Amino acid sequence: MRPWSASSSSRTVGDSVDKLGVAVIGSGYWGTNLVRNFRNHPDWDLVAVCDLDPARAARVVGQRSTIDLLSDVDELLARSDVTAVAIATPASTHHALTLRALAAGKHVLVEKPIAESLDQAAEMITAAQAAGRVLMVDHTFCYTPAVRYIRDALAAGDLGDLLYVDSVRINLGLVQPDVNVFWDLAPHDLSILDFVLPGGLAPQTLSAVGTDPLGAGTECVGHLSMPVAPEVLAHVHVNWLSPVKVRQMIFGGSRRTLVWDDVNPAQRISIYDRGVDLPTQRENASDRRASTISYRLGDVVVPALPEREALSSMVGELAAAIREERAPLTDGHAAMRVLRLLSASDSSLATGAPVRLDDSRSAA
Amino acid sequence: MRPWSASSSSRTVGDSVDKLGVAVIGSGYWGTNLVRNFRNHPDWDLVAVCDLDPARAARVVGQRSTIDLLSDVDELLARSDVTAVAIATPASTHHALTLRALAAGKHVLVEKPIAESLDQAAEMITAAQAAGRVLMVDHTFCYTPAVRYIRDALAAGDLGDLLYVDSVRINLGLVQPDVNVFWDLAPHDLSILDFVLPGGLAPQTLSAVGTDPLGAGTECVGHLSMPVAPEVLAHVHVNWLSPVKVRQMIFGGSRRTLVWDDVNPAQRISIYDRGVDLPTQRENASDRRASTISYRLGDVVVPALPEREALSSMVGELAAAIREERAPLTDGHAAMRVLRLLSASDSSLATGAPVRLDDSRSAA
Amino acid sequence: MRPWSASSSSRTVGDSVDKLGVAVIGSGYWGTNLVRNFRNHPDWDLVAVCDLDPARAARVVGQRSTIDLLSDVDELLARSDVTAVAIATPASTHHALTLRALAAGKHVLVEKPIAESLDQAAEMITAAQAAGRVLMVDHTFCYTPAVRYIRDALAAGDLGDLLYVDSVRINLGLVQPDVNVFWDLAPHDLSILDFVLPGGLAPQTLSAVGTDPLGAGTECVGHLSMPVAPEVLAHVHVNWLSPVKVRQMIFGGSRRTLVWDDVNPAQRISIYDRGVDLPTQRENASDRRASTISYRLGDVVVPALPEREALSSMVGELAAAIREERAPLTDGHAAMRVLRLLSASDSSLATGAPVRLDDSRSAA
Amino acid sequence: MRPWSASSSSRTVGDSVDKLGVAVIGSGYWGTNLVRNFRNHPDWDLVAVCDLDPARAARVVGQRSTIDLLSDVDELLARSDVTAVAIATPASTHHALTLRALAAGKHVLVEKPIAESLDQAAEMITAAQAAGRVLMVDHTFCYTPAVRYIRDALAAGDLGDLLYVDSVRINLGLVQPDVNVFWDLAPHDLSILDFVLPGGLAPQTLSAVGTDPLGAGTECVGHLSMPVAPEVLAHVHVNWLSPVKVRQMIFGGSRRTLVWDDVNPAQRISIYDRGVDLPTQRENASDRRASTISYRLGDVVVPALPEREALSSMVGELAAAIREERAPLTDGHAAMRVLRLLSASDSSLATGAPVRLDDSRSAA
Repeated sequence: MRPWSASSSSRTVGDSVDKLGVAVIGSGYWGTNLVRNFRNHPDWDLVAVCDLDPARAARVVGQRSTIDLLSDVDELLARSDVTAVAIATPASTHHALTLRALAAGKHVLVEKPIAESLDQAAEMITAAQAAGRVLMVDHTFCYTPAVRYIRDALAAGDLGDLLYVDSVRINLGLVQPDVNVFWDLAPHDLSILDFVLPGGLAPQTLSAVGTDPLGAGTECVGHLSMPVAPEVLAHVHVNWLSPVKVRQMIFGGSRRTLVWDDVNPAQRISIYDRGVDLPTQRENASDRRASTISYRLGDVVVPALPEREALSSMVGELAAAIREERAPLTDGHAAMRVLRLLSASDSSLATGAPVRLDDSRSAA
Repeated sequence: MRPWSASSSSRTVGDSVDKLGVAVIGSGYWGTNLVRNFRNHPDWDLVAVCDLDPARAARVVGQRSTIDLLSDVDELLARSDVTAVAIATPASTHHALTLRALAAGKHVLVEKPIAESLDQAAEMITAAQAAGRVLMVDHTFCYTPAVRYIRDALAAGDLGDLLYVDSVRINLGLVQPDVNVFWDLAPHDLSILDFVLPGGLAPQTLSAVGTDPLGAGTECVGHLSMPVAPEVLAHVHVNWLSPVKVRQMIFGGSRRTLVWDDVNPAQRISIYDRGVDLPTQRENASDRRASTISYRLGDVVVPALPEREALSSMVGELAAAIREERAPLTDGHAAMRVLRLLSASDSSLATGAPVRLDDSRSAA
Repeated sequence: MRPWSASSSSRTVGDSVDKLGVAVIGSGYWGTNLVRNFRNHPDWDLVAVCDLDPARAARVVGQRSTIDLLSDVDELLARSDVTAVAIATPASTHHALTLRALAAGKHVLVEKPIAESLDQAAEMITAAQAAGRVLMVDHTFCYTPAVRYIRDALAAGDLGDLLYVDSVRINLGLVQPDVNVFWDLAPHDLSILDFVLPGGLAPQTLSAVGTDPLGAGTECVGHLSMPVAPEVLAHVHVNWLSPVKVRQMIFGGSRRTLVWDDVNPAQRISIYDRGVDLPTQRENASDRRASTISYRLGDVVVPALPEREALSSMVGELAAAIREERAPLTDGHAAMRVLRLLSASDSSLATGAPVRLDDSRSAA
Repeated sequence: MRPWSASSSSRTVGDSVDKLGVAVIGSGYWGTNLVRNFRNHPDWDLVAVCDLDPARAARVVGQRSTIDLLSDVDELLARSDVTAVAIATPASTHHALTLRALAAGKHVLVEKPIAESLDQAAEMITAAQAAGRVLMVDHTFCYTPAVRYIRDALAAGDLGDLLYVDSVRINLGLVQPDVNVFWDLAPHDLSILDFVLPGGLAPQTLSAVGTDPLGAGTECVGHLSMPVAPEVLAHVHVNWLSPVKVRQMIFGGSRRTLVWDDVNPAQRISIYDRGVDLPTQRENASDRRASTISYRLGDVVVPALPEREALSSMVGELAAAIREERAPLTDGHAAMRVLRLLSASDSSLATGAPVRLDDSRSAA
């Protein structure tokens, strides 16, 4: 049930007998984070960093390091001390690099989005299965203590029936002409929902609205709506143009409501034992308000969460999946479910109408 | 330019020469607030409260009061010491009561929504014009110092071009089988937008999504989307089922962004001198992030706002409009623009598709 | 155990059989609040308001009221329909007015501070006992749901052993040449501590530090320190010159810590199940930090509190004490314990050294 | 005026011509942070880490590193490629290690507190002067953008006359039997005040109150009071037993007040253009409140601050001081002023009375 937390706690610092060799491909912003986490993790031995720009790779590993710096992927994939590769290059290269790495017998961790099309993603999944190698996607937020807590709370039924989900992820963002705000930010919301909702995220329709008020050439403000059950809407607001940083998810339940405020480290998760109870009988009373509403105003609980870096847990899960020869928590199928919804958002934007989806789970 | 603030400041407490007589019809929750404000306002003499339930009216005025308590509207409207009436009864009675009051020569303040249909509202407006009487709708939020500030800031162009508007109004609410969450809460958002946007709120399309996850018989969670200019979306989230109370509006601008957080009295309005600047030239640089984005990270200003009760300013504006024989700031046309959008939300919910609107302003 | 909440809930609105007649003396800022609360409370019939300035009294009761307006206290005290008087006049008049009211057979509610000297207060208490009348002091905060909650939590031992109390009450305040910041603000902190600490507030020493940085002629910034048990310090910071409004009390406990943040209505009280555990054994380990510290990082609970106006509960308690012929929760002895500490603060300021106190409880 | 920011911005990443060799002595919690910052800084080449426990040093530098690991300080100090050493060992070793390093011709950065006694500190300062080497103390907070901003604001007179300073630094802390809460936490407050107050921190008296409510063997809760000018009090509250983390400093001024809230990254500094204005004339008006008080309720400005790691700026300043052959911003004299106040707190705790200090500046 909790393989990654178990596996990471069973290993102690300095126990270097069975470290796995890993290389990071791409030393930009995210590659730098991966380098730092692989380097400090007891399960891993970071043997090489590969980048077309050797100076950039050199800066990332820093001085007085013997980590190998390569600019040739083939050279990297030919090495026998590399068990796994982490691909942190632009999305357009994910498909080809992953297939090459799998063909060379490497396990693969790939940044989101896994690929640029569903066909590419399916091909990558098939290739990994054929090669008997782990294919993992870096849905980082799924490895935060907060998301783990939400997943457990929903699985345990702590909230009662789910009534709605509201997710807001807005901030000054990186306006990029080739990726709109949905493809940049919504993978976080979608992968989290896929991870925490019992049964995963498999809406039957999806509706997207987006605007480009700056004339940037791509949508900078967007709203996604998906029914995740009858009369239960998940709504996602993504926005690159907000100087206020909001990262909040509300999971409204019939018994309790969970609020995750990720920019408040002192109180990331709050569980409200509050709600609206419907009357069993409604009378035509003169004072409608009194007759039709019943509040439950219970306590709020702020659970203690460990402060643990998500990326460290994530690379630990990669090691565990490789050793235990199992699928990682965020595998290619999860990546594909997210990709299918992003593709649907493109369709909805193009047509201005909701898009029907086949059941993501059966498709995956 | 600022008639209501001017008129209210020119009058001093105790200057009772020219008080206007007023009666409140309906002594429920909102009627109670009106009674308190008319009673304490230097422009008004509250002469009577009218309610079908005399005991309720008695409780509202309290002991040792000589305010008349009536249960018969005709008796009330026949009185010569009543210059204006404030109608705080259920929405289904607004149309008939307003017409009777206007016929009796009274000025009328009516709660939102002004009526149940556009035809009714149009008839009320026509009747007021014919009678030469003021017809005012109680869009209370328009009389808060914060909304006044926003109106002035937008009129002055302080934000640059408007890029988007995002409004969230969620709380544990009064689930009512005969009014959905849009009709209950969105009048606030819509009347505010109508008040602050230069030119008013006149979208060409409107799209509504709503759910009834409790099985309450009506939508309890809703989202409204309206383009208020090309590529400029106003989005409104209304929700009766949130134990967290959020009342926030963001007005994103090309120069500055204004955030109104109405549940934070110490910092209701923040003006962010921050934003995203597009590069004039885009190159195909290796590091996309550096080339395509330019943040402006300036200061945030929290303007000092007076703490003044909106209802008091509102009843002051009613007196000023009567005396100056002019339309009040929130007149029947404003009410009708809001009503038109609420009606459109019903259509959108019914069809599941965006609804086209004629231009509200020409229609009004 | 909870007389006031019981008594107020047992009475219903409109049950006017046994209303008690009351008059408010003094219609300034606080008198206005008292008028509003007596007027709306089911236990009370506000029969008169007495002020040297009749116009001010008239404004406070408003138009169309039959509440009597008097400027002569003797006339007021002679009335048989006045069971109790509430004295909201300057502190220098409290002693004389209270004695006159008691002599006339009235029960008395008096604003804080009860008097200007301990001798005066003692005389007032004795007079009330001799007359068989209630003497109550308006320690308003003691009637808030939050303070009630804190009192119950401490009485139940929920926090374990008390380790420290830290109270901050700072805001832009009313600089008055005749009252320093201790006499203006600290009565709140001291009366609350007296109310919630099991056994009341009876420090053996008190130390005060105050400054007058504006040259206002009186201390505007102050700090009070009082050991409330061996090695358990209560510290109070009062300040008229802070543009930030802070009203926070922390009750640190060996098991839990309670934080009361009175300017955050959504989360006034938080109970932290967190603390520092001392090791039973200390070793001379190389890493001191690991060996000498043990954190307990449990959940935080935010209890649901009713939003109830404290003044309404306070006037209800006055009625209950009169009817039940008992001392009110905040009686003359409580007032005197607070007064003794304020007097001690004067001594400490004058000498620049801590002041020894006799045990307040035995003295009271 | 701003040597460190100038010097750090004039150097670019990868410009390795004139890197300075540095070694870190002590690889505990703080040594780890120093290692990370020296390693990533363009001015420095981290050549060695020295620790009595080689395994600990190995963990700190990580795998695949050629940074030398030493356990012998003499061996380290004999190396010619080491220009400076950073001493992050227990306080009791600072004096001896610093003298040895200076004797070997090294520049020295030493953790706070610089030494255990004023005599030791004076000896260290003299030795550095004699050797012509930089002696710098790691007052880390002085290198944060927030503290830099405060220093500039006070130097420019933006706040008008300083009225009071209130500093709160409370959190669950490391209870250590050999260091009390003053020596652990107050060096931060004192070094910050020394850095930002024009003229430095040189109170003529200091008063300390501390308690040990847990029976930990040392003070865990403490309050410091120091007049920094006539009628201008600086108060510091330090506390290891608070589950709420507060790191707030208020600088009250006659024109503006600055609040630094270090646990709120989105709004660390707020400048309130609010205050209390004294009337020029006071009349004996009936309403004291109106006559004696005048609020100024202006805007609040939240200045944009860069998010920059303080330790990185600090090690940059060390390099600049060495190259420019000048004293660093936080030199031995600053350390000694802080040490003098900590020693005074010991005296005040022992006697229970305020302690007189000679003028720190002349002494330094």
